[in-house]
Amino acid sequence: MAASVTGPEIERLIQLLARLPGLGPRSARRAALHLIKKKDELLVPLARAMDVAVESIRVCSTCGNIDTSDPCTICTDPRRDPAVLVVVEDVSDLWALERANVINARYHVLGGALSPLDGIGPEELGISRLVARVAEGRIEEVILAVNATVEGQTTAHFIMDQLAGLNVKVSRLAHGVPVGGELDYLDEGTLTAAIRSRRPF
Amino acid sequence: MAASVTGPEIERLIQLLARLPGLGPRSARRAALHLIKKKDELLVPLARAMDVAVESIRVCSTCGNIDTSDPCTICTDPRRDPAVLVVVEDVSDLWALERANVINARYHVLGGALSPLDGIGPEELGISRLVARVAEGRIEEVILAVNATVEGQTTAHFIMDQLAGLNVKVSRLAHGVPVGGELDYLDEGTLTAAIRSRRPF
Repeated sequence: MAASVTGPEIERLIQLLARLPGLGPRSARRAALHLIKKKDELLVPLARAMDVAVESIRVCSTCGNIDTSDPCTICTDPRRDPAVLVVVEDVSDLWALERANVINARYHVLGGALSPLDGIGPEELGISRLVARVAEGRIEEVILAVNATVEGQTTAHFIMDQLAGLNVKVSRLAHGVPVGGELDYLDEGTLTAAIRSRRPF
Repeated sequence: MAASVTGPEIERLIQLLARLPGLGPRSARRAALHLIKKKDELLVPLARAMDVAVESIRVCSTCGNIDTSDPCTICTDPRRDPAVLVVVEDVSDLWALERANVINARYHVLGGALSPLDGIGPEELGISRLVARVAEGRIEEVILAVNATVEGQTTAHFIMDQLAGLNVKVSRLAHGVPVGGELDYLDEGTLTAAIRSRRPF
């Protein structure tokens, strides 16, 4: 109905906005209307920012990070410890760790996790490329910072096996109670892990 | 942090996306990443659709609707009943009524509701323009389809007073139980209205 009232240009904008994660058909319509109302403050700058993004964004050929240079800012940063490599599933995980500002290492972005049912095997994730990178010899520790899901843990075990022959320490993230978390709302697996890995006070 | 890792171009895109209704800082980041990953399928077409919107969108000088022509498609549609005028607060309300396909009338978009605390008075809503439109004489019924909020109802009463001298029927939307609604979840005001306006079965 909206198409016949507002014209195909607005309907097309709504349809494309609805494909963003976090926006459904209804909120996409609201977002489109907001953009149209704030034409000069928001619609024009956002269209321009997207054009700039289209022109400037590169995928780092070393680590898979998304940046405006290749190799990316992290891979070329001389202050990063070259001996520690953090393996993540997605660029969003890399961003999350950087926001936490917890480790001054380099990264390797897999681009997903092993999932045979979805046709994602070791080739799709380029795990041999990761193994080759580690085999080059400057890396002393690989931290498998994958998600605590079945697919993530399967991927971690697979990578662990592939790295077995190399002289490198492999570690993974600790399981436990999230900071600020209430025990009552946690699943049994997390509570079991938190008890088993308890630390002296 | 993300700025220093990803470059200012991506950070700018995230900041602008975060200003859309329904997207917070975290989901804006996810949306930006999704756009970048789906560059050819989504980012490029969306940037293009926004450029088209910037060029083509007009506000109807008769009713306040947003369209690609002025007067808009609804105002120029000869099949619409020129005797009935539906007054709404926002273009999104007009779209909602059109989707419901419930009435074949013309509209008047106020652009908000009276809210003295926010500095929105009768001038900001152009209520004198609405009164002048009704006074022209072709309109027989004005339906006040404003929100069932304090501001919406205040606006309805104010418009009713302004239209009092004109020979026009003024009506408002019915209150009651929403279709599919469960009584247990409804507020007392709605239940009271539903009982008072009960209909023979």
